[in-house]
Amino acid sequence: MVTALPSRSIGRSVQRLEAREKVTGRTEYVHHIKLPGMLHGKIFRSTIPHGRIKSLDVSAAQAMEGVFRVVTIDDIRSVIPHPYYGPAFHDQPILADGKVRFAGEPVAVVLAADPRIAEEAAGLITAEYEELPAVYDEIEAMTSDVRVHDELKPAATFPDLQHLKGRGDTNIALDYKLVRGDVEAGFSAADHVFEHTFRAQQAMHTPMEPFVSVADVQDGRLTLHTASQGPSFVRIEIARLLGWPENRVRVKVPHLGGGFGGKLYIKLEALVTGLSLLVGRPVKISLTMEEQFFMVTKHACTFTIKSGVNKDGKIIARRCKVVWNGGAYADIGPRVTQKAGFTSAGPYDIENVAIDSYAVYTNRPPAGALRGFGAPQTAWAYESHTDLIAEALNIDKIQIRRMNLLQEGRPQASGTIVQDAALEKVLDHLLDRMNWHLPFDKGSGSIRRGRGIAIGIKGITSPTTSVAIVNLYGDGSCGLYIGTVDMGQGSDTVMAQIAAEVLNLDPESIRVIHPDTDVTPYDMGTLGSRSTFHMGTAVRLAAEDAKRKIGELASELGLPPNNNLPLSELLRKKYGMQAGNIIGTGSFIPAYKKPDPETGQSLAATPFWGVGGNAAEVEIDTETGRVTITKLVNVVDAGVALNPQLVKLQISGAAIMQLGFTMTENMVFRDGQLTNGSLADYKIPSLLDMPREFVNEYVVSRQSTGPFGAKGVGESSTIALSPAIGNAIADAIGVHLTDLPLTPESIFRAIQIKNGTPLAGE
Amino acid sequence: MVTALPSRSIGRSVQRLEAREKVTGRTEYVHHIKLPGMLHGKIFRSTIPHGRIKSLDVSAAQAMEGVFRVVTIDDIRSVIPHPYYGPAFHDQPILADGKVRFAGEPVAVVLAADPRIAEEAAGLITAEYEELPAVYDEIEAMTSDVRVHDELKPAATFPDLQHLKGRGDTNIALDYKLVRGDVEAGFSAADHVFEHTFRAQQAMHTPMEPFVSVADVQDGRLTLHTASQGPSFVRIEIARLLGWPENRVRVKVPHLGGGFGGKLYIKLEALVTGLSLLVGRPVKISLTMEEQFFMVTKHACTFTIKSGVNKDGKIIARRCKVVWNGGAYADIGPRVTQKAGFTSAGPYDIENVAIDSYAVYTNRPPAGALRGFGAPQTAWAYESHTDLIAEALNIDKIQIRRMNLLQEGRPQASGTIVQDAALEKVLDHLLDRMNWHLPFDKGSGSIRRGRGIAIGIKGITSPTTSVAIVNLYGDGSCGLYIGTVDMGQGSDTVMAQIAAEVLNLDPESIRVIHPDTDVTPYDMGTLGSRSTFHMGTAVRLAAEDAKRKIGELASELGLPPNNNLPLSELLRKKYGMQAGNIIGTGSFIPAYKKPDPETGQSLAATPFWGVGGNAAEVEIDTETGRVTITKLVNVVDAGVALNPQLVKLQISGAAIMQLGFTMTENMVFRDGQLTNGSLADYKIPSLLDMPREFVNEYVVSRQSTGPFGAKGVGESSTIALSPAIGNAIADAIGVHLTDLPLTPESIFRAIQIKNGTPLAGE
Repeated sequence: MVTALPSRSIGRSVQRLEAREKVTGRTEYVHHIKLPGMLHGKIFRSTIPHGRIKSLDVSAAQAMEGVFRVVTIDDIRSVIPHPYYGPAFHDQPILADGKVRFAGEPVAVVLAADPRIAEEAAGLITAEYEELPAVYDEIEAMTSDVRVHDELKPAATFPDLQHLKGRGDTNIALDYKLVRGDVEAGFSAADHVFEHTFRAQQAMHTPMEPFVSVADVQDGRLTLHTASQGPSFVRIEIARLLGWPENRVRVKVPHLGGGFGGKLYIKLEALVTGLSLLVGRPVKISLTMEEQFFMVTKHACTFTIKSGVNKDGKIIARRCKVVWNGGAYADIGPRVTQKAGFTSAGPYDIENVAIDSYAVYTNRPPAGALRGFGAPQTAWAYESHTDLIAEALNIDKIQIRRMNLLQEGRPQASGTIVQDAALEKVLDHLLDRMNWHLPFDKGSGSIRRGRGIAIGIKGITSPTTSVAIVNLYGDGSCGLYIGTVDMGQGSDTVMAQIAAEVLNLDPESIRVIHPDTDVTPYDMGTLGSRSTFHMGTAVRLAAEDAKRKIGELASELGLPPNNNLPLSELLRKKYGMQAGNIIGTGSFIPAYKKPDPETGQSLAATPFWGVGGNAAEVEIDTETGRVTITKLVNVVDAGVALNPQLVKLQISGAAIMQLGFTMTENMVFRDGQLTNGSLADYKIPSLLDMPREFVNEYVVSRQSTGPFGAKGVGESSTIALSPAIGNAIADAIGVHLTDLPLTPESIFRAIQIKNGTPLAGE
Repeated sequence: MVTALPSRSIGRSVQRLEAREKVTGRTEYVHHIKLPGMLHGKIFRSTIPHGRIKSLDVSAAQAMEGVFRVVTIDDIRSVIPHPYYGPAFHDQPILADGKVRFAGEPVAVVLAADPRIAEEAAGLITAEYEELPAVYDEIEAMTSDVRVHDELKPAATFPDLQHLKGRGDTNIALDYKLVRGDVEAGFSAADHVFEHTFRAQQAMHTPMEPFVSVADVQDGRLTLHTASQGPSFVRIEIARLLGWPENRVRVKVPHLGGGFGGKLYIKLEALVTGLSLLVGRPVKISLTMEEQFFMVTKHACTFTIKSGVNKDGKIIARRCKVVWNGGAYADIGPRVTQKAGFTSAGPYDIENVAIDSYAVYTNRPPAGALRGFGAPQTAWAYESHTDLIAEALNIDKIQIRRMNLLQEGRPQASGTIVQDAALEKVLDHLLDRMNWHLPFDKGSGSIRRGRGIAIGIKGITSPTTSVAIVNLYGDGSCGLYIGTVDMGQGSDTVMAQIAAEVLNLDPESIRVIHPDTDVTPYDMGTLGSRSTFHMGTAVRLAAEDAKRKIGELASELGLPPNNNLPLSELLRKKYGMQAGNIIGTGSFIPAYKKPDPETGQSLAATPFWGVGGNAAEVEIDTETGRVTITKLVNVVDAGVALNPQLVKLQISGAAIMQLGFTMTENMVFRDGQLTNGSLADYKIPSLLDMPREFVNEYVVSRQSTGPFGAKGVGESSTIALSPAIGNAIADAIGVHLTDLPLTPESIFRAIQIKNGTPLAGE
């Protein structure tokens, strides 16, 4: 029997279960899959940002030797009569349906046994368009006469996406409102009112493994092998498209080479399904790195933040207008709009708050979930704004934060009570690691130094469900069945630790069965820092259920509860031999209250709070704008760190990712055409871009509702990183940049403007 | 909610779920599996029946271009230190270990990417042997000085195989004894004593799909794709060989192209595992049809039956000496010995019984389980014997059976009370379908006709365990997770019917997940007519567990139990969206009492009784011995037929199979060498061998302990088929044959002997 020994699992940096197979190159990825008779699809894409397809000439492609078939939306419609999908709206056609809405949109697919032939043939397709006026900027799109969509069908899939507009009379897909107190009265009462506008750019997820899906339809059953973060969603949505029950759609996901929110909901899955159904053979599509720019992106965002502040620095009113550039298809953008919206006033205790957060369609590649889920874009605004207020009022930047920070037990802007959010502890730890109390050399001449700090908060998508199964075999060894996708974050390992802790096993001995909707039970998705908390709880419950059943078995056998017999012996007594199973199940959904539709007020807007703070020291060459990050400290609230090493990797990984979005990454468009759609021109951080000193730490602060006190940490260090660096740059050069990324050009330009020096050529 | 509608599932001839994929050639078999880097193994086999390997020359094979490696037991031992396996004894080496014990035993394996090269290279291997005296006949082997094994290690795997000898001082692997009453006193008290000896021949399973296994060892984990009837056993036994926990061994079984008991326990699995572990690549071995003769066979058997009978035909004492020719390795032979042993006195109520049933080693290919599990060999004796007694006493052959038949509530020879065994009903139905009461034209001249009848009983291996999982998905569709192998018998369909009945779903809508030890829970094996009863009960329990959980969910939601809401709506209420699972589990092991080791007496020797009767009309050309089966009636006790069409297919399939073993199939050896080891020379029944009139029916007789009243029917029509035909032939020609098969030669010879006509050349 399981006895109460000291923990073998929790708080231990268990090596990743898949470490060895990964470093020896044996890890299974969808890219490896080859099926008999499999065809490869290559996509012909729109060359214009908005227009009607007048004609499509596929004859040369179809005539090419080795081409199996060229497929358009009309063909797809013959097998999927309503070929539109999406988690928020059913707005995205499987292939362009009469219209194209962004340059790069899939219009046709060439199928061939040889992917090189398919690619060559796709190059032979030509299309004639009737070009339509297009809109790219989210602010323009709010009022533009250009309509990206004429009509919309709300998907009604998720309980938290209720108030979606279904009309095409504006480009606004969702107008999310949150009202607390009386913000105008607050502004009137305040000693000072500040308003600033900040902008974050469109960027890309850039997983090392590009999108790839294989569909195999046979005899009314579909198997999808797909690099997806959400196999359960894929199953449900594909079943809906096909009009099939869930149990005829099987979605299998091996390891992922990164996801970061990009591989959620439907990406290539509907397309390969349609193709396989059409031709009766397995079909694989794997995108190139470059094609990923046209699949899903990080929202560009314009955020106007206005605060009423008393002269001592106390913020008493705040209005946020956040406009999200969702691109041509909503994807999960409305949820980003809502979730990042409700925390867009920051981690502060403000009596009067009004938030408008808009999901807006434009003629750009679609935007969706990306690590941080909008929180980094909002924090970029609110924490730059905090420093600007402090500077204007000449208040210490730490002091103004401390004075306004949300305390335990206080309602956040949404009305949800703050619990287990270690804001102050994170701030203290940041200051400690930054030696903030020590004198700081700000440089001189053309080399200037600065330091900055920022702190942020993030709500977690709710309500969502996770289900887990623990199966103990006849020899007592354990299989853990979960739909959580291990995409590099180490979820297999952490889930094994949780099960092991309950069952008093070694986590290394547990076999984690990878997502396969025919095998693993439901999980809403591996996203939004939810897995450790949600699936971790489901795993704990499943293991406890198994433990309870072991106790029942002992009692059935007439043994005392603490009989010290290993499970294998109990089963042997029951079955007379090595046989049987103990199967425990666990299902978890956090408490949820639907927010008031008018005010957005809710008692449970998030199951826990993501809390992260960042601080940076920078050195700037004012003659070139070149910025060197001499020190970067990232601190998150980890609840209890189940696996300290994995928590630190999450902190550093998330920070490096956000560092790219802060310093270099930017999808640059000209007339709707992406001008830097390759990794030669689109710059993700390299080893040379790492901070000289790079500190990634967590504070321990028990999450009372989490499994063994844990909370999710996959995004927390992204939230406030941009403003920490922005504030450090401002500290060095005396001026705040408002637009991401913080390139040498923009820094140099800011210095020139501040100095009143006109730029060459301007 | 599930409501009480009339049955949608039970008793309906639901079409096999896999029918369409099978007839369109899309069914998945292990033969289809190709893995990257996979090597094919071809086996070099012993050319002598018994001897020491003096030397083995693999140099020419190893030197052949394209050969990856030649592997012997020494190589295997480097990765599996104790390379011996077996369900009863760990007596079988993965490759010959110093000694060979039958002609055809695997000695070495050639690995190559191209199986043709591997085969050619295997032909280049030569071996020198020190030949040893050999023994082939089971009776000779009982007392022979030849020792097939010097030492034996009982496997202790199964609770019903307790009293195995572990010594090599005889060739007797198991001496199973059953004693009831005082048989010698019975003989003394009887009016007449009869003794006859019968013999059944060694034969082969001949599945359309020969043995095939693929092993893929990677990073301390093994995946076996294997055509096995017992994936759970394979996992446990391979884990034992490797010293690994069960959860590092994954055994996947798709559909099987027939099994018939041959594909149980370890066949190629240990060999491919050793090979893959050795070379670090996937390894596949697929046998040819011809190689199957050397894998596992049906036991030859010599059965001396002695009965004390009163003049009215009442049997008061019976002694059975059954000697089973197990070949060189025990496989599951000891269990055949025991299980067929305890019913070897037939379906009769006999006060005094003594049974000795011996598992004997010889230098022949190993024998194991084959449809009927020894019962047809014993019935061949006891039901021929019944007719001989009736003829001697001039008693009606039906009357003698009816007088002695076991009645409900009476103890069988093992002491187990007979319950739910429709012996009399089967007999009545046979007589009815045979028009037994009508005059019968016995022919004249060289064309003689006869009719015969026989009835038999079979115990079911016990105790054995089955576990099932029912998973209801968010839309209410259902997945059923079972380790039962659908090898053509239609188990997927029947299990779906059982789950559907409980859950009020259409069985066609249920998705049955095929055996995969990483996915499906424990099942002892698809064998011995146990699946419908054991797994069927586990499925019923799992579905009831799911139903109970649906009720709990309704009550959690504040709904009445009979709320009529579909499950999808309940889950939607619970989770706010299409999400979640209802997971039910069920585990079943029948009641079991260990028999007394001295007397074999037990109160629960079998969880239910297999009952079958057969009757035949034959026409014999006495000038040639040619026999035509003009009518064959097969009737079984089906309990309640869950799927009438599938029950009938089981009855006819089993009957045709036993027809082959009765009329033609025979492995003919000369000096231990198989002389007819090809399907050109070894004759299985063809369409031309079918009876002119072929009646396959069941009687309904509720099995009170079975799922919805059902019992297993996969073997019942095999039991008494041989004596029915033998008795019909005797009725035609006036003499009983004692040895199977009943060839024209043996019939002609019997006629000649009876007529006192010496045969030409004798």
